[in-house]
Amino acid sequence: MALVVQKYGGTSVANTNRIKRVAKRVIERKKQGDDIVVVLSAMAGQTNYLIDLALEMQPQPDKREMDVLLSTGEQVTIALFSMAVKNLGFDAESFLGFQIPIETDTAHTKARIKNIPTDKLKRALKQGKIPVVAGFQGIDASGSITTLGRGGSDTTAVAVAVALNADVCEIYTDVDGVYTTDPNICPSARKIEKISYEEMLEMASLGAKVLEIRSVEFAMRYNMPLHVRSSFTNSPGTLVVKEDKSMEDVLVSAVTYSRDEARITVKKVPDKPGIAAALFSPISEANIVVDMIIQNTREGNLTDMTFTVPKNDLEQALEIVKKTAEKIGAEAVVGDKNIAKVSIVGVGMRNHAGVASKMFDILARHGINILMISTSEIKVSCVIDEKFTELAVRALHEGFGLDKEGFSEG
Amino acid sequence: MALVVQKYGGTSVANTNRIKRVAKRVIERKKQGDDIVVVLSAMAGQTNYLIDLALEMQPQPDKREMDVLLSTGEQVTIALFSMAVKNLGFDAESFLGFQIPIETDTAHTKARIKNIPTDKLKRALKQGKIPVVAGFQGIDASGSITTLGRGGSDTTAVAVAVALNADVCEIYTDVDGVYTTDPNICPSARKIEKISYEEMLEMASLGAKVLEIRSVEFAMRYNMPLHVRSSFTNSPGTLVVKEDKSMEDVLVSAVTYSRDEARITVKKVPDKPGIAAALFSPISEANIVVDMIIQNTREGNLTDMTFTVPKNDLEQALEIVKKTAEKIGAEAVVGDKNIAKVSIVGVGMRNHAGVASKMFDILARHGINILMISTSEIKVSCVIDEKFTELAVRALHEGFGLDKEGFSEG
Repeated sequence: MALVVQKYGGTSVANTNRIKRVAKRVIERKKQGDDIVVVLSAMAGQTNYLIDLALEMQPQPDKREMDVLLSTGEQVTIALFSMAVKNLGFDAESFLGFQIPIETDTAHTKARIKNIPTDKLKRALKQGKIPVVAGFQGIDASGSITTLGRGGSDTTAVAVAVALNADVCEIYTDVDGVYTTDPNICPSARKIEKISYEEMLEMASLGAKVLEIRSVEFAMRYNMPLHVRSSFTNSPGTLVVKEDKSMEDVLVSAVTYSRDEARITVKKVPDKPGIAAALFSPISEANIVVDMIIQNTREGNLTDMTFTVPKNDLEQALEIVKKTAEKIGAEAVVGDKNIAKVSIVGVGMRNHAGVASKMFDILARHGINILMISTSEIKVSCVIDEKFTELAVRALHEGFGLDKEGFSEG
Repeated sequence: MALVVQKYGGTSVANTNRIKRVAKRVIERKKQGDDIVVVLSAMAGQTNYLIDLALEMQPQPDKREMDVLLSTGEQVTIALFSMAVKNLGFDAESFLGFQIPIETDTAHTKARIKNIPTDKLKRALKQGKIPVVAGFQGIDASGSITTLGRGGSDTTAVAVAVALNADVCEIYTDVDGVYTTDPNICPSARKIEKISYEEMLEMASLGAKVLEIRSVEFAMRYNMPLHVRSSFTNSPGTLVVKEDKSMEDVLVSAVTYSRDEARITVKKVPDKPGIAAALFSPISEANIVVDMIIQNTREGNLTDMTFTVPKNDLEQALEIVKKTAEKIGAEAVVGDKNIAKVSIVGVGMRNHAGVASKMFDILARHGINILMISTSEIKVSCVIDEKFTELAVRALHEGFGLDKEGFSEG
C-alpha cells in the first residue's frame, strides 16, 4: 500500500463534470489499496477572474487582500470535490491552508512554505478519508492568508508529499507528460519517460510550462519522486527523479524555447569599476529579473552591455536604464522585443565535450544567427531572432536525435 | 466620537461599482470622526450560484463542505472592499471568521455564535484602520468553518456590535427602513421611525423580510440599538430599540402577511390523551415546523385538528400525517396551499382591549372569512383565503389608521 499525493490543476477541475470525473479517478485508485491525499487548484479561469475584479478596485491591489481574494478559488474546488467523493459513497475532508496549517512566511502573493504539520492529514487518512487540500494557499505567523504565487499548487502538493513522506507526488495536468520539446511546433516531439530533477529544473526555468520551478526544487531537495501525467488519460506520464547512471548516456534530453524575454543594449559604456552595479542595481530594485548579461570590450575604455529582461518589463526597464545611461555617460540604449531563447538541456553534457559547438553548428547550418549565449553545466541557451524560433527548435530536436524512438533511454 | 458597526447586504455590494460606492460612504462617515467596523454579505446572487454548484455535486450536499463553499462569498467581498478603501487613501483590514475568531457551535449551515474576542478588531481600530468583517461565517472548536444560515450577516453585525460595545449597529439594505406594511401592495404604507425589538421580532417571524430574526433577538438580549436604513440614500431609516412609553400609545405598529404557509386538516380524530403527540412528533422529527394549531371538539369523542406548516414542506408533511392518521383511526387528511396569514403587531395591544375584535370586525366588513386565529401579547394573526391577502392588508392598514401621517408617533 502506497501513500500517494495527487495534484490536479485548473483544467482538470474546470467545471463540475470534470471535478466529478477526477473524484471517480481518485476513488478507483483508493480502491486499489493506496492512501490518497488530493491537492487541488482553482477552476481554470477563476484566478484570472478574481484578479480582474481586484484591478477594478485598486490599480495595484493590496497584496494581503489579494491573497484573501485569490485563496477563495481553491476553497471552492476542495469543497465541491469533497462533496463529489461523498456522493460516490467514499469519505473526504477538505483542508484549507489555515486548517492544516500550511505555515508560510509573510511574503503575500509569493509566500514560501516553512512547515506543514501532518497530524490532521494523518488522522483523516487513518479514518479512511481522502484528505482534500487547497493548493496555492497558506497562513503566516500573524494568521493572515498567504498565497504561493502562480503555479503554487504544485509546490503545495510536493511540500505535502514531503511532509507526509509519501511514496510519490503525482502532478495531473492537461498534457500526458514532459516532452522532448513542444509538440505544437515540433510534431516529432516524444514523451520523456524519466528525467532528472536538474534537467526538469532547467527546463522549467527555460520556458517549459508543465511544472512550477519551486515545486521541482522542493522535490529535488527532499528526493520526492514526481510523476507528471494527464488527468484525461490513463497512460503513464513522465517520472522526475534523482539522476541515475542511465541518464548520462543521453547527450541532450530536451529542447526548450521562450519568447518571454526582451533584449536591452547599452552602447559605449565607460568600462570602469562600479558600472555594472550602477546599471543593474536600479533594475533589481524595481523587481525586474535580469537573465543573461553579455559585455563586449571595444575601442579603448568603452564597452557595450547587453542583457535580457522579461518582455513585460521591457518598457519599465528601458526607462530606468536610460536614466542610468545618462548619468554614467553611455552613448545609447536600445531595446529589442523580437528575440527568442532556444536551449538544449541534458545531464549527459557533463561527460560529453562538444555539445555546445554542435548546437552552434546546427543553428549555423540553418542560417540562424546567434545573438547571445549562456551556458550552465547541463544546458546551453542561445538568443536568436524571434522569427527563427520554430526552425531552431525543430533543427535542434532532429540534430540531437531526439526524434528517434528509444534514444532518450540511452 | 461613536463606535458604529455597519452591515451592508448583498444588493449593496452586488458589483464592483457598488462596493466602491459603499467604501466612499464608509469613509465619509469615518471622516466625521466615528470609528467604523464594516460587516459585509456576499455579492447578491453569489450564494445561490454556489448552492447550485453544490447541488450538482451532491443532491444533499455535505454540510461541513457546504460551509467551506458558501463562506467564500463573503471572503471575496471583504477583500475587494478593503482594496477599495485603500484605493481611496484610507486603511482597512479584512477579517475572516477564523481570524477574529467568530466562535460558533458545530451546527454546520445554521451555527450559533458563542463568543467573539475583540482584541484584533480593537487593535485595528486603534491603528486607524477600518476593520472589514466577513458576515455569515464563523469557526467551530475543531477549526472547521461554519455558517450562520440565511441572513446570518445581520447576526454577525449585531454580535460584533455587542462584543465591541458599539453605540449602534446600522443595517444597510435596499429599502430605506421598516414600513407599516409592504409598500408593494399598500401604497399608503409609511416608514416607521422607531419600533421596539419585540415588535420587530414579531414582524420578522410573521413575514417581514427586512431583518433576520436571530439578529433582532441578539440585539434585544443585549439592548443594542439597530438602525435599518438604505445604502442607496442618505435619509434616516428605522430605529429598532428597547420599548419606551411613547410606543404604548400606538395600538398597532404594523400589518404583515405571509403566503409561505399551508394548512393541513385531520378530520374526525378520536379525542383521547396522546393523540396530539402521536400526530406532531413524527412531523417535528422530520424537521418540519408547525406554526398554528387548532382543535375543535365535535360529535362525541371525535375532533378535527387543523394546523399550518411551511408551504414547501406540505407534501412531505401530508405523507407523514396520512400514515399517522391511518394508525390513530382518523377519517381523512386534507391539505390546502391557498391560504395566507395576515397579522397586526403592536406593543400598544398590551394596554388596550378590543384590538383583536376590531381586527375581526374589519376583515368581516370586507367579506373576508377567518380560517384560523392565533394571538400573542403583541400580535394577532388570522389565516385567510390567499386571494384576499392584498385586500386584507390594505383594510387593516387603513382600519388601524396606519396610513395617517404622524399616527405612529402617538
